Amino acid sequence: METFNHTNSSSPGAAHQSGKLLVVKIGGNIIDDTAKLNAFLRSFASIPAKKILIHGGGKLATRLAEQMGVEQQMIDGRRITDAETLKIVTMVYAGYINKNIVAQLQANHCNAIGLSGADGGLILAHKRKHASLDYGFVGDIDHVNTDLLQTLLDKDIAVVAAPITHDAKGLLLNTNADTIAQEIATALAPLYDVSLIYSFEKNGVLLDVEDENSVIARMNASYYAELKEKQLIFAGMIPKLDNAFAALQKGVAKVIIGKAEQLQQLVDGASGTTISHE
Amino acid sequence: METFNHTNSSSPGAAHQSGKLLVVKIGGNIIDDTAKLNAFLRSFASIPAKKILIHGGGKLATRLAEQMGVEQQMIDGRRITDAETLKIVTMVYAGYINKNIVAQLQANHCNAIGLSGADGGLILAHKRKHASLDYGFVGDIDHVNTDLLQTLLDKDIAVVAAPITHDAKGLLLNTNADTIAQEIATALAPLYDVSLIYSFEKNGVLLDVEDENSVIARMNASYYAELKEKQLIFAGMIPKLDNAFAALQKGVAKVIIGKAEQLQQLVDGASGTTISHE
Repeated sequence: METFNHTNSSSPGAAHQSGKLLVVKIGGNIIDDTAKLNAFLRSFASIPAKKILIHGGGKLATRLAEQMGVEQQMIDGRRITDAETLKIVTMVYAGYINKNIVAQLQANHCNAIGLSGADGGLILAHKRKHASLDYGFVGDIDHVNTDLLQTLLDKDIAVVAAPITHDAKGLLLNTNADTIAQEIATALAPLYDVSLIYSFEKNGVLLDVEDENSVIARMNASYYAELKEKQLIFAGMIPKLDNAFAALQKGVAKVIIGKAEQLQQLVDGASGTTISHE
Repeated sequence: METFNHTNSSSPGAAHQSGKLLVVKIGGNIIDDTAKLNAFLRSFASIPAKKILIHGGGKLATRLAEQMGVEQQMIDGRRITDAETLKIVTMVYAGYINKNIVAQLQANHCNAIGLSGADGGLILAHKRKHASLDYGFVGDIDHVNTDLLQTLLDKDIAVVAAPITHDAKGLLLNTNADTIAQEIATALAPLYDVSLIYSFEKNGVLLDVEDENSVIARMNASYYAELKEKQLIFAGMIPKLDNAFAALQKGVAKVIIGKAEQLQQLVDGASGTTISHE
């Protein structure tokens, strides 16, 4: 845990003294659709709580790589972040997407600040080590600078984080945005009443993957175990849900999964899937 | 002038209460040379004062535009920032260059945060209006958010500003880095003892433009008037020097012009040209 110098900080352990905090991940497909993205940002801007937005990259980086003639390396079906790809994702994620999101939020009277993990030492990571596969410049997270986040949040500044971290030795690293959202949410859980929201193009966790209306509105650990037991959870959702329950274990109050266009309803529990201890 | 909410802030008018501040502009040619840039950043990181770095763009944006097949529009010898060029400079300046500078400073134990003018509403600008020429997405500065800068500087965070501003209506704007440096320096002059440093590839202001060793070490307004009168100032330097004297008029303690590789000597007055009231 961080030590705190800021005058508004609590003593460590005084949980939730700073009120509600939304940590919202916005998925790639929305990033690629300007109209949907701007509607989402208007909604995000209008929510009065303290808030952090983590964005993915969408298809812009792939398109730019094609335009620049940089081939995407794939090994065993996995994309490898080589030096040229790292340059592209730094430009697109921390530059183009991050700054346009911030400018749109400012236009909607939400004072936002866009950061990569290098900025203010926000997210320290290390280059991924793997026995047989070199992922290239991909980062696994070691530490989140909660002091910086608290300073900004206490000044009612919304933080917009790009999925780029650093290793404190001069390397920038491409890092999964879902993981960044989870690490930020759990790091801040001792300080705020944190809701972690994964917003994307789906309505929520579905009981029937073919039926967008079969959203499971509420889920706790025992119900999740029961659904897994009956093999009623789509295999692709299991890692996400395991992560959601891990976040609850680490102090996040609730995890909400649902449609980006319904952000306010997700926050209110009126849409999507809410995962909590209850 | 800004109003201050931060607990460490002075009451407005208590000039220079917060100590020395360096506002350093690093020119384009250094940005393009990784070895020189990294040496400069090591030197910048080692200076114990509060500090702000403003970087230009270098030739990376032009190279990327070529690689992407985006033609640079020139009208009457001036580069026009069209929509595609704005996208490129946002990626290169606020993304690639800004984040790599921040990562290098972090590696040198300098806690830096990279910002565009949109971030935290740092620099509000408007799209340039010109009677006969449309410069495109180019910004002229209206306001600098000194409250945000003071909050970060008071936490010993060095600010790294990219030459991109915003209009608070959702537009990002390409903005001259020299001008940003000057506007930041003058906005903070009531709060700090500000030295504004323009560092580039030259030794300083030269008496003889052919002789790199003819640096004018010190210059005040009357000496400048005398040199201009005798036509001993290279025409290309006159706008820069006029701006330097304007900054002095607005409260900046001194303006120093000189070689990026000698940053520490520039700060100490042992190299370059120091422009002050003395």
